[in-house]
Amino acid sequence: MAGKIEARLQELGITLPDPPVPVASYQPYVVSGNQAVIAGQVTFLDGKLKYVGRIGETISVEQAEAATRLCALNVLAQLRAACGGDLDRVVQVVRLNAFFNCTPDFQDHPRVMNAASDLMAEIFGDAGRHTRVGVGVNSLPLNVPAELDGVFEIA
Amino acid sequence: MAGKIEARLQELGITLPDPPVPVASYQPYVVSGNQAVIAGQVTFLDGKLKYVGRIGETISVEQAEAATRLCALNVLAQLRAACGGDLDRVVQVVRLNAFFNCTPDFQDHPRVMNAASDLMAEIFGDAGRHTRVGVGVNSLPLNVPAELDGVFEIA
Amino acid sequence: MAGKIEARLQELGITLPDPPVPVASYQPYVVSGNQAVIAGQVTFLDGKLKYVGRIGETISVEQAEAATRLCALNVLAQLRAACGGDLDRVVQVVRLNAFFNCTPDFQDHPRVMNAASDLMAEIFGDAGRHTRVGVGVNSLPLNVPAELDGVFEIA
Repeated sequence: MAGKIEARLQELGITLPDPPVPVASYQPYVVSGNQAVIAGQVTFLDGKLKYVGRIGETISVEQAEAATRLCALNVLAQLRAACGGDLDRVVQVVRLNAFFNCTPDFQDHPRVMNAASDLMAEIFGDAGRHTRVGVGVNSLPLNVPAELDGVFEIA
Repeated sequence: MAGKIEARLQELGITLPDPPVPVASYQPYVVSGNQAVIAGQVTFLDGKLKYVGRIGETISVEQAEAATRLCALNVLAQLRAACGGDLDRVVQVVRLNAFFNCTPDFQDHPRVMNAASDLMAEIFGDAGRHTRVGVGVNSLPLNVPAELDGVFEIA
Repeated sequence: MAGKIEARLQELGITLPDPPVPVASYQPYVVSGNQAVIAGQVTFLDGKLKYVGRIGETISVEQAEAATRLCALNVLAQLRAACGGDLDRVVQVVRLNAFFNCTPDFQDHPRVMNAASDLMAEIFGDAGRHTRVGVGVNSLPLNVPAELDGVFEIA
């Protein structure tokens, strides 16, 4: 790959992980029309969960940021696969949705979600400027601290 | 109806329920471009809630699976209406979103959500392979154990 | 603006607020194809949070309705900006998603969400009839009682 986005990833020192294999009977991505829709990604790295636990209990805000960034890298890994390997096909990051496994007193969703949002802006520039929704929940699959999904316009 | 999907439903012994009437001021589905967008469906059957309660308290994992399958059947009933009665118009199941009303220690979202995912695959084959997001929450409308919505590409 | 929808807003005595500036690194809206996708809007009015707290604790059902209506007004303010100021470009309200910050015993999501749904119907008529998902969660950004986002088909 000698694409612009791959070059940008190298410049930023970012290596996308291998796209995680779904833990159940669904697809990691679907392309419909000009949209690549990515399934909820969690904190898998090399086939293992790197972050497990609840924000406000066993997961600090800093760890939550790192966990969310890892979710975003997994979203991008699936997006690359959805684009047949060519991230230059990404026209616009349309939407990111984040769910945080947290205690009821947690209020720092915007700060933690910036770990995903800033990554998109760094990599895609203006095309990375997206809408988002980020909320706290009381339970996530496998007790991960964060789950992130997204919708991307592709060419 | 003598469509392929209707024949498949018969083969599987599945009768779709009557599409539930919204309990408030919204629509059960909207068709926009080539997308049929289905509102959140809960555990109604014949006008009554068949499953009520929280997973981990009064609802077991097995009951949660049955409840989620019922939500999926209601999604399909609404989808059939969105397609003017012809489920052969479904090109692709794009996205399923599930919210589970559960205790904080619940972690079996993937297993429970398979009750919906497997149903789509059984009925639609490759066109039923979808992306999904499934999270746990502390409260759902009318205290149902699960709510499921979806986006479908239709012809 | 002398558009039909602006006239309707005046008739209803509704003044849309200034569209809130994102509190973090994302966009309030993205237009992709014929869809305007609006980021999660909370209870900001004139740069300050008008409603803060959890439904069932410090926020009553009536206050939750008012808070949800304010979220919806902020969604519409962002939508107007997404339409370059011309709300007559709205073809269809496709989807509203609401997250309520509430205690586990809260069950009145449909009633509270009607504050947003009814507003859409009053303003847009048939074009305002939308699908929706509304769930309760244990934590929202800045401890707001409600967060609302939406997808709109525009011309």
